[in-house]
Amino acid sequence: MTVITKAKAVGALSPTAALGPLEIERRALGPDDVRIDIKFCGICHSDIHFARGEWGEIPYPAVPGHEIAGVVAEVGSDVTKFAVGDRVGVGCMVNSCRECENCQAGNEQYCIPGNTQTYGSIDRDGTVTYGGYSDHVVVNEDFVLRIPDELPLDQAAPLLCAGITTFSPLRHWEAGPDKQVAVVGLGGLGHMAVKFAKAMGAEVTVLSQSLRKQQDGLRLGADHYYATSDEATFETLVHRFHLIINTVSAQVDMGALLSLVKTDGALVNVGAPGEPLPVPVFSLLLQRRSFAGSGIGSIAETQEMLDFSAQHGIAAEIEVISAGQVNEAWERVLNSDVRYRFVIDNSTL
Amino acid sequence: MTVITKAKAVGALSPTAALGPLEIERRALGPDDVRIDIKFCGICHSDIHFARGEWGEIPYPAVPGHEIAGVVAEVGSDVTKFAVGDRVGVGCMVNSCRECENCQAGNEQYCIPGNTQTYGSIDRDGTVTYGGYSDHVVVNEDFVLRIPDELPLDQAAPLLCAGITTFSPLRHWEAGPDKQVAVVGLGGLGHMAVKFAKAMGAEVTVLSQSLRKQQDGLRLGADHYYATSDEATFETLVHRFHLIINTVSAQVDMGALLSLVKTDGALVNVGAPGEPLPVPVFSLLLQRRSFAGSGIGSIAETQEMLDFSAQHGIAAEIEVISAGQVNEAWERVLNSDVRYRFVIDNSTL
Repeated sequence: MTVITKAKAVGALSPTAALGPLEIERRALGPDDVRIDIKFCGICHSDIHFARGEWGEIPYPAVPGHEIAGVVAEVGSDVTKFAVGDRVGVGCMVNSCRECENCQAGNEQYCIPGNTQTYGSIDRDGTVTYGGYSDHVVVNEDFVLRIPDELPLDQAAPLLCAGITTFSPLRHWEAGPDKQVAVVGLGGLGHMAVKFAKAMGAEVTVLSQSLRKQQDGLRLGADHYYATSDEATFETLVHRFHLIINTVSAQVDMGALLSLVKTDGALVNVGAPGEPLPVPVFSLLLQRRSFAGSGIGSIAETQEMLDFSAQHGIAAEIEVISAGQVNEAWERVLNSDVRYRFVIDNSTL
Repeated sequence: MTVITKAKAVGALSPTAALGPLEIERRALGPDDVRIDIKFCGICHSDIHFARGEWGEIPYPAVPGHEIAGVVAEVGSDVTKFAVGDRVGVGCMVNSCRECENCQAGNEQYCIPGNTQTYGSIDRDGTVTYGGYSDHVVVNEDFVLRIPDELPLDQAAPLLCAGITTFSPLRHWEAGPDKQVAVVGLGGLGHMAVKFAKAMGAEVTVLSQSLRKQQDGLRLGADHYYATSDEATFETLVHRFHLIINTVSAQVDMGALLSLVKTDGALVNVGAPGEPLPVPVFSLLLQRRSFAGSGIGSIAETQEMLDFSAQHGIAAEIEVISAGQVNEAWERVLNSDVRYRFVIDNSTL
């Protein structure tokens, strides 16, 4: 017989409150559920937008965290894919309607009624979801990923959001040999995009505001590194790229960025600025360019990304912190002062 | 021996002047050139933007017109594709660099140094190009199209711009059976988009400001007709379309339009508003949608479009005018008061 469990967590009680220790409840293990002891959880910029109510009203307490890596502690009676002791991960979603055309096609990230987010959503059973700033979580096995043995759990955690968010568009827009790929912004998402694009065989250029992180960028696998604050960059790189992945959530000069895209190429945003981006339409139609967006990836593609990472020796560059350092870490994320992802050691909760 | 010829034309001497009769020179027929007696020329909204200097400074006199239908009057010594008496057309471009990767790939409409526009460009030989509001034109044979016998020349003229501008993106984004296609705006471009999309086998919806032209839209082949001024339209049609062709050059509510696009679908602008369009990025990334642009089509694709039109009995809906009515026609174009394209009878010059 399974019961509701109490979980230690770190979360916020209001949009303006600092994060602090909390106790939350996890649902009783259902027949298709897996209970995961969370070992590490990455800190994503979205956690901050969410907890501070910047993306709309949310239920409080808010427990963020959707870059979860841990070990299976218990499985429901009908679980077939996982066993106790398995190394597993959970990303940005923990359920979906399973009936719409996108779910049926294996694109549950684009579930039309909306997938169930790992935190701040109402799950299909009516319970509110809480994220990975917590000691354990209960998740339907269909939304649990297997973390290959080659990947350390702490470095694997950010793959569940920053990793798949960049891997998916690189695959969808066919980054590979003979392709010129640019990555705008070298942060949590950007540094993963560089690693993946390089491993897929593309020639990779980082476009960053300054050359401050140039050495890092080249070490991570970039072939070229340019500052967007230098106007000459846009002359040099005009019409260069098949694909630009824009990881920056702030306003950018869309006309300038689009001028760097080849005919039939795409500029793909994975960051979502709060305000609309002004797009000069001539920049699109004179070269049949596309401006697109991409959100995370499917469960199957997330597993593919983890396996690809293991095969290519790819993981996130991280700074591990204790649960008591989360507020400070959030401030540093807001100041872009992290190379390249904070990961909470959940044993310190 | 060939000589420079004098051509009767209608054009403008300044951005603010009314159009009036002019005499211009056409270059001496080169070995690869075709001299065309122009029988009809369509009036495109671009003609007005151009002649009034709204798209940048231009050389005057300005003779617009890039929807040219006529008959071959003379061919250069090396011309192999055309003979005197052939029914031919000329669209928006009359040359390109022929060396860049796009020209080499048969996408000369996206010539990287820039194709030579039918009017207001400096051609590769240094002469200024003048458009089809004129009694004849000299064009390199590679940029001349064959108009099938089934198509009346007057109704064929608008195919050279309005036709190919809508045909090309419908082909590129694969309009066809089992595809839901919407056309925004039922004007010169929109009415061609409806006809082509229907003939390609798609289910076609017109999105127009009002239901004023509904009967026309259905007669032209649309399966459905909705007013964008009615908010219920956006509820009814949410997530409906694989492809939306936006023919409107004015500001539109991009978030509302994008909400009608299916996962992985595209909203493609063929109209170019002067001001950037504000795009809410969440509308793109929550369903991996694209916002793209498309400009005319290649010469090969333009020929394919003309042959397709003949095969499917498609041509433009036109109102034929005399050369003396051009100023009045322009005013009516600006007021959207034409169903659906004015065509000049060039015998009246």
